[in-house]
Amino acid sequence: MSSAVLRGTPVRRALTRLLRANTEGSAENRPFRPGAAADIGPLRATGRLYCSRMSLTGGLLFRQLFELESHTYTYLLADTETKEAILIDPVLETIDRDLKLIHELGLNLKVAVNTHCHADHITSTGLMKKRLVGLRSAISKFSGASADILLSEGDKISFGKHYLTVRETPGHTDGCVALVSGDQSVAFTGDALLIRGCGRTDFQQGCPEKLYKSVHQKIFTLPDQCLVYPAHDYLGRTVSTVGEERKFNPRLTKSLEEFVKIMNNLNLPKPKKIDTSVPANLVCGVHEV
Amino acid sequence: MSSAVLRGTPVRRALTRLLRANTEGSAENRPFRPGAAADIGPLRATGRLYCSRMSLTGGLLFRQLFELESHTYTYLLADTETKEAILIDPVLETIDRDLKLIHELGLNLKVAVNTHCHADHITSTGLMKKRLVGLRSAISKFSGASADILLSEGDKISFGKHYLTVRETPGHTDGCVALVSGDQSVAFTGDALLIRGCGRTDFQQGCPEKLYKSVHQKIFTLPDQCLVYPAHDYLGRTVSTVGEERKFNPRLTKSLEEFVKIMNNLNLPKPKKIDTSVPANLVCGVHEV
Repeated sequence: MSSAVLRGTPVRRALTRLLRANTEGSAENRPFRPGAAADIGPLRATGRLYCSRMSLTGGLLFRQLFELESHTYTYLLADTETKEAILIDPVLETIDRDLKLIHELGLNLKVAVNTHCHADHITSTGLMKKRLVGLRSAISKFSGASADILLSEGDKISFGKHYLTVRETPGHTDGCVALVSGDQSVAFTGDALLIRGCGRTDFQQGCPEKLYKSVHQKIFTLPDQCLVYPAHDYLGRTVSTVGEERKFNPRLTKSLEEFVKIMNNLNLPKPKKIDTSVPANLVCGVHEV
Repeated sequence: MSSAVLRGTPVRRALTRLLRANTEGSAENRPFRPGAAADIGPLRATGRLYCSRMSLTGGLLFRQLFELESHTYTYLLADTETKEAILIDPVLETIDRDLKLIHELGLNLKVAVNTHCHADHITSTGLMKKRLVGLRSAISKFSGASADILLSEGDKISFGKHYLTVRETPGHTDGCVALVSGDQSVAFTGDALLIRGCGRTDFQQGCPEKLYKSVHQKIFTLPDQCLVYPAHDYLGRTVSTVGEERKFNPRLTKSLEEFVKIMNNLNLPKPKKIDTSVPANLVCGVHEV
């Protein structure tokens, strides 16, 4: 098990906490100190709030990156003091851009995590592991994919004094996860919740009932002002909030029955790269890593 | 002159300050309270810092939006209390997306400003004025374009208790401006400074010597941690910092002589849309507005 990941089971978590407290300090032991009132509406839920709340736990570097062909967002997060970093959903085509930025900023990339086994692009995780000594890959244990770290509900991915918590959000695929910051001010929602949309449910274990339940139970229960950073956007939008999506998402504001009907009648074309992407992503994007 | 814009000349500024203080409160009278030490390096210069520093002056909503064909970034900024908003570099193709978001967030868009007369896309400013009562357009007085507000060095574009200050940055065109937040934590640099690049200088009054001087005197004099939000990025990067560009920009870290040589030998193709975009942008994107 990675030292960067704390398991969700109470006994193991307590043990790991104890070990960590004696060696490198524990991110889990910090008190939860929300930076804004919980009744703040969507309008107030801006990048500023995310940032000022995160700043309660010290310096955080955050970069959103975009891959133009598959419209995928990659996210780089780092602790500005320890320089430990994590990368979410990196894409094979942009590996050089991402590694150059990581190098220029002097970061130590610890974990490259995929929010699920993507069907529209190949992850750069495997190739990145070949080029960065010590880097570990992570993905849900329900994804069916191989990785150094297999994630479960409640696991924490830590970098310096920051961490993201895993919330399992099956429905688009069985192995989808959302990654939520310690103060619940930001959620990386993968394909489960997109801006004014959601991932499709017509392949790879897709199930609209499961997706509806996941979003309502695991994402819409976050504070209104929690920022939503999805895995994709096809209209050039970069961020939303839980409050906005709860109010304006054209699919997930509907009843379960209506949602299922919508999802079962999208009639979308088969993703162009699914036959090459999924087999590759089951092995971190490349074989023998 | 727009009430949203305070002119840079001392007498007029003092007069406007006085008038504003008596009517709606003055954004200019607030003390400058930087939120972080000035010696913070590029690594620390993250969205979080921008945000936490801006938060010293109250709630700010910030959204970065992307137009996929011309790779243009549009920026929406608003005061979360008064709901007054401004929009930077809106694109004709994404007018419906932008207006929908403004409507959903309940914002009152006061000013749509272009950082220069674009050659690669048509602005939506003119059409937006037809669809939003009271909206005013703004562009540099040196752009040659018509607009409700012709901007000069030092002018302030205010929205609620926030404001951006105009810095003239000729070189890509004569009418280029950068827009800098009151606490110098963020700069919207238009085409003058791009992430690890800069605007071309081979058409529309382009002049590499002027551009070099503009960037070094008007942008590189901002704090290292000041975030750089450009008008475009072609590689999916969303933000940089003054410190990073001062250190890693492959063109502007060179001497003036080397820079001029680089810029005069780019041999770029003529922008596809220049013959339609520039005439349209000289009249806010549409005639008779």
